[in-house]
Amino acid sequence: MILTKAFAAFNSKSPLAPYSFERREPRPADVHVEILFCGVCHSDLHQVRDEWGGSMYPMVPGHEIVGRVLSVGSAVTRFKPGDLAAVGVIVDSCRTCSNCKRHLEQYCDEGAVGTYNAYERDGKTITQGGYATHIVTDERFVYRLSEKLDLAGAAPLLCAGITTYSPLRYAGVTKGTKVAVVGLGGLGHMGLKFAHAFGAEVTLVSSSPSKEADSKRLGAHNFLLSSDKNQMKKFSSYFDVVLNTVSANHDYAPYLKLLGMNGRMMVVGLPAEEPRVAPFDLLKNRRSITGSMIGGTVETQEMLDFCAERNIVADVEVIPMQQINEAYERMVKSDVRYRFVIDTASLKQ
Amino acid sequence: MILTKAFAAFNSKSPLAPYSFERREPRPADVHVEILFCGVCHSDLHQVRDEWGGSMYPMVPGHEIVGRVLSVGSAVTRFKPGDLAAVGVIVDSCRTCSNCKRHLEQYCDEGAVGTYNAYERDGKTITQGGYATHIVTDERFVYRLSEKLDLAGAAPLLCAGITTYSPLRYAGVTKGTKVAVVGLGGLGHMGLKFAHAFGAEVTLVSSSPSKEADSKRLGAHNFLLSSDKNQMKKFSSYFDVVLNTVSANHDYAPYLKLLGMNGRMMVVGLPAEEPRVAPFDLLKNRRSITGSMIGGTVETQEMLDFCAERNIVADVEVIPMQQINEAYERMVKSDVRYRFVIDTASLKQ
Repeated sequence: MILTKAFAAFNSKSPLAPYSFERREPRPADVHVEILFCGVCHSDLHQVRDEWGGSMYPMVPGHEIVGRVLSVGSAVTRFKPGDLAAVGVIVDSCRTCSNCKRHLEQYCDEGAVGTYNAYERDGKTITQGGYATHIVTDERFVYRLSEKLDLAGAAPLLCAGITTYSPLRYAGVTKGTKVAVVGLGGLGHMGLKFAHAFGAEVTLVSSSPSKEADSKRLGAHNFLLSSDKNQMKKFSSYFDVVLNTVSANHDYAPYLKLLGMNGRMMVVGLPAEEPRVAPFDLLKNRRSITGSMIGGTVETQEMLDFCAERNIVADVEVIPMQQINEAYERMVKSDVRYRFVIDTASLKQ
Repeated sequence: MILTKAFAAFNSKSPLAPYSFERREPRPADVHVEILFCGVCHSDLHQVRDEWGGSMYPMVPGHEIVGRVLSVGSAVTRFKPGDLAAVGVIVDSCRTCSNCKRHLEQYCDEGAVGTYNAYERDGKTITQGGYATHIVTDERFVYRLSEKLDLAGAAPLLCAGITTYSPLRYAGVTKGTKVAVVGLGGLGHMGLKFAHAFGAEVTLVSSSPSKEADSKRLGAHNFLLSSDKNQMKKFSSYFDVVLNTVSANHDYAPYLKLLGMNGRMMVVGLPAEEPRVAPFDLLKNRRSITGSMIGGTVETQEMLDFCAERNIVADVEVIPMQQINEAYERMVKSDVRYRFVIDTASLKQ
């Protein structure tokens, strides 16, 4: 077994604290990765605090994982020791349903296995995530990572990156597409970078005038202040695609109205309160609202390769593991530009 | 001017009553049609009773119009006297916006001109509909109709027909597509016929067990009782397309859950109360909700040609004009299978 040092939540109220546990010995199809960096996703905090219910403790969070391969099982073909590797939000799925067969494992009919706070396919082993020194994962759910990318910045690609890349691709964003990204946080800032890289005309829609300068730096051509009703009206029926990254409770209506003919609002956030939808806003311009959840294994690899080619990474603030509780407090206040990433060297001291 | 006998609403409270008015002399691009039948749409009642606000009286309702051409203007090329002809929900649009240029006139940026209870493009003339002996309409918004079809049954194709044909086509329904039609009224019964004609596997979803037999006759292969939670659960994630025809207040959730991977719920009804949408129901299976409004002029003609080829018409109950108020009362109680159609010969006596 592989002794692994980590930080874990022991219940929904206490701060995260040091924890040691054992990873399984690599099976034939497994890749054993020494973790170098792990991004801090807002969903880590939701699960640590049991805000979605059903949390299991001790819980080692983290699903934006990059590191180096230490060893591989006998059946592994895509990795060898010393390679860079990445692990994202899911580590297994049934592999036999029609969605899995199309490499849409995130939509597995039986439910994909989360990287932490989930049961393995054996129905009893609880998965543990990337706030740790090592991880052992089946090759299908491990991605190749270019040596060209900044490693800390690459970690958030595994969740914030693919969560925005996939819906923009699904909506057919390409050169000249008019894209509005709603919200500038971990997801929104990746949405701006990808939409820009795809050649779109990119607008950030935000309630904070202070986000304008940064949005331009991150790839937006225009800025739309959502509280300015005249501006919002001026851009009604203007956009082809709205990428709605907002997770706070909000009304879909003002963003839906921005969509022109056959326009799609891609929704990736999960507000606790269910938004209302005015049917007329949908009928006008034949608009759609479409949900999107991370990405499948093939598309995640495609995204990482695209990022290597275009040198796209997240804007991150690197922290030692020991600062995770303070980072959570700052994340709640949206005081991060735009992702905390844990340098796991701090666990090895 | 063309003297026209009709029935009109004179205010939001009184029954419809006889009314005479003059239609314009045909302009070079106009087609002058003697109306033979006019369908009775639920939106007629909403507007007669001013339930949507802004109703203008006297109002001659009716936008499911079939008849014979009496005369044509000098620039008309597609019609000659004696031809069958049809007029639907819209009679004009700006014709220059990008939607009009693509023959999506129903989504005209400046708003298409409704067949009744609307202002012409001159901004002052009020349009009057098909509960009348004659109509004069610009050729672009007049459709050719096959002599093969039952004329009374063909009338509802102009609204109930195209309103269901267009979203099924837009959603890509074809041979083998799994389609659920929610609600069996004027729209739903046409949805069943079209989905069946497109080669889909068709299911009617209804809260009334009494609708099962009729749904099978109309083209459904299966029947799903929406109040039976076990049945609904059994078909969760099963369908490719849900055509939601319900106009009464309702929750989208149970129907959204029926959709499998990349599934689309096409919404054509306009419930007064805005439905809530659970974002997770959208994220799962990357589901979409898409609105759809009638159809453009090219697609409406395509639909009528398709109906002629497959001998598709609505199931109707033909009434004389004088029974319209009683028909409205029965329509409110859903006591019609599935569309009242006025025989306008009754106006000429």
